[in-house]
Amino acid sequence: MIRANDPSLTSWLTVAADSDFPIQNLPFGVFKTKGKAPRVCTALGDQIVDLLALHQLEYFFDLDIDASVFDNAYINDFMALGKEKNRAVRDRLSDLLRADSHFDAKDKAGAFMLNMSDVELMLPVKVGDYTDFYSSIEHATNLGCLFRDPENALLPNWRHIPVGYHGRASSIVVSGTPIHRPKGQQMPADATSPVYGPCKLLDFELEVAFVVGQATKLGESVSTANAEDHIFGLVLFNDWSARDIQKWEYVPLGPFLGKSFASTISPWVVTLDALEHFRVESPKQEPAVLPYLVSEGKRNIDINLEVIIETEKGEAKTVSESNFKYMYWNMSQQLAHHTVNGCNLNVGDMCASGTISGKEVGSYGSMLEITWKGTKPVTMPDGSERKFIKDGDSVVMKGFCKKDGLRIGFGETRGKVLPAV
Amino acid sequence: MIRANDPSLTSWLTVAADSDFPIQNLPFGVFKTKGKAPRVCTALGDQIVDLLALHQLEYFFDLDIDASVFDNAYINDFMALGKEKNRAVRDRLSDLLRADSHFDAKDKAGAFMLNMSDVELMLPVKVGDYTDFYSSIEHATNLGCLFRDPENALLPNWRHIPVGYHGRASSIVVSGTPIHRPKGQQMPADATSPVYGPCKLLDFELEVAFVVGQATKLGESVSTANAEDHIFGLVLFNDWSARDIQKWEYVPLGPFLGKSFASTISPWVVTLDALEHFRVESPKQEPAVLPYLVSEGKRNIDINLEVIIETEKGEAKTVSESNFKYMYWNMSQQLAHHTVNGCNLNVGDMCASGTISGKEVGSYGSMLEITWKGTKPVTMPDGSERKFIKDGDSVVMKGFCKKDGLRIGFGETRGKVLPAV
Repeated sequence: MIRANDPSLTSWLTVAADSDFPIQNLPFGVFKTKGKAPRVCTALGDQIVDLLALHQLEYFFDLDIDASVFDNAYINDFMALGKEKNRAVRDRLSDLLRADSHFDAKDKAGAFMLNMSDVELMLPVKVGDYTDFYSSIEHATNLGCLFRDPENALLPNWRHIPVGYHGRASSIVVSGTPIHRPKGQQMPADATSPVYGPCKLLDFELEVAFVVGQATKLGESVSTANAEDHIFGLVLFNDWSARDIQKWEYVPLGPFLGKSFASTISPWVVTLDALEHFRVESPKQEPAVLPYLVSEGKRNIDINLEVIIETEKGEAKTVSESNFKYMYWNMSQQLAHHTVNGCNLNVGDMCASGTISGKEVGSYGSMLEITWKGTKPVTMPDGSERKFIKDGDSVVMKGFCKKDGLRIGFGETRGKVLPAV
Repeated sequence: MIRANDPSLTSWLTVAADSDFPIQNLPFGVFKTKGKAPRVCTALGDQIVDLLALHQLEYFFDLDIDASVFDNAYINDFMALGKEKNRAVRDRLSDLLRADSHFDAKDKAGAFMLNMSDVELMLPVKVGDYTDFYSSIEHATNLGCLFRDPENALLPNWRHIPVGYHGRASSIVVSGTPIHRPKGQQMPADATSPVYGPCKLLDFELEVAFVVGQATKLGESVSTANAEDHIFGLVLFNDWSARDIQKWEYVPLGPFLGKSFASTISPWVVTLDALEHFRVESPKQEPAVLPYLVSEGKRNIDINLEVIIETEKGEAKTVSESNFKYMYWNMSQQLAHHTVNGCNLNVGDMCASGTISGKEVGSYGSMLEITWKGTKPVTMPDGSERKFIKDGDSVVMKGFCKKDGLRIGFGETRGKVLPAV
């Protein structure tokens, strides 16, 4: 077992039982306080732990890490140190924060701990390239039924390839960033020429993304067996989608402006190590995949996912409860496929899962599916209906793993929709 | 007229009449010599001019530019200074290098000039996001004829939208970088399940890309009238394509591994300013485009383009002579469309034109079109045939503008195809 994951550990800090951030989590993020430069941090309960401050207190004295790694607006340099050093830091954090610590960190907590509510959590990763997969068979089947033929919902390549496409990295923003309703071209059903205006069918997509922590060279391919060496950790990912813009533009080269106006991620990158305890078998794949895509062992992760729509008045409705374990194609297969042609990965690249839908209506990961193209609206607590997302609504996604009394959470992605500019 | 563009200027350095780099060009790039860090440079004839050395010689004394801008592996920091300062530097370079210069640079040439053949030219731009458009009507029509219906070759959205998609930025490499033939999944015509192996239909795509020099904020849109303020300059772009991988994977989300193994750019970014003299009218657009896409003035550029295949023994054949002026959608329209939904641009983003084909077979920009899906092979000087690109072949692209005795060139993109790893 990974040392920092020991379920019997408790911290000298009181952590609520339902916290996303027990001492077994120790995710990585970046925070900012007024007038100071951003720094790398971890989370414990309702506190953030300033890793630069810990470095200055010489708690990493034996780890040979430059202060600039933590005195940094992104965790990329930290990830680039490699898994061995990343683990040494996570283990040290665990040793500093545990109830029976041999260090004197508890006495110096004032020098490195802040209330999470007093800091601004920043985009943790400088994203190089962003790839979006399409790996939920339930989602792909739903879309095939909605837009093509229910009898042949999946396209011929779907069960052979973890289908994916390149997304826009520049517009990936951290939870809390408001999103302006995008404008663009749409082709109304009864029209003969397109119109220009604000998107009318604004949607979310419930996804989980992995962050690349180890680069590859151009021409190099990574096997499914080694793929996880390149994965640092995971975030929640809302792939905002303008369905009307997307529908008109996407043939033949795929989604572009229907997606590129924004994607929202959670501020904490939960390490693959912290999720070790929650691994599950992947779904059986039929027909058998090509040898380069065969993966061994438990490669899916049991992460409970939830999507909530909040009105401007704060009335909230859960519109989806899904799970990352449903993914037909796992992350190792995605990464092996991504590099099979020699495409190089850089530290900070982000690969999202695609919309994560389960089998039931209540577990669908987009309004397009939940309301079945707007034909079955959702009723909000105030009696109003939602076919898609309205101005003033906030879309909130949450995620956590729970097993044997241990709960590891992701925090949330939150994005409020503002009217078109 | 832009001062540095004056056609009457000559340099104290002898520049061959057919050089791509007369004193009116002054493109920006990055070079490296053994044991030294990369630096920003410009080109003059067969020489490169070290801009860090010029800075150290205090020739930029009045321009308030930090040495780190030139002591840099990329030109991004230079572009980020803005057009006004970029122009001041280009004007100063012109003033230093002109025959009747008032500066003493000629006497100190040994301190800042090197033979281009003695240096390594590097990837000049740290590319953030890379977008590939599909803006040649001749190319889109050819593909429609080849793969769909010659009677309805263009898809319904094509004349309304400068169709584009997100490409892979990490695998953009500089001219001279060898390319391994990619491996991946293909579905042979007579098969019922896909196979894995080296690509059999390796192709090039002749493109020109613009480099973003001024960022925009998320939520902001740029008008066609202001679009060029955000464009620093242009490079030649070979969008390598694995046609068999692409064909099997691209429905419904667009090209992915069929393109992401490599794209090759020329090492010099030719400024939009240097191309001013070669502007031409854009083709007439029918039907009329939506108001946000209407552009005024001469927005196309007359750039002669050439593609050469060289065998391993050095026998060369020109397989395409095309021109950037053919583009149906111009760069201002592409950029206005790209940002209409509020998608933000960063300095260093790259937007390629899509394959640039003319009306005649000899001006098609890909082997797919030139050999009409392999049915009309090209005969090489040694008698061998090419339907697509073979291992050992080099694909070379060249580009230059010529008018009124002035010639502004781009150098070349060169890529040799190595066998699959």
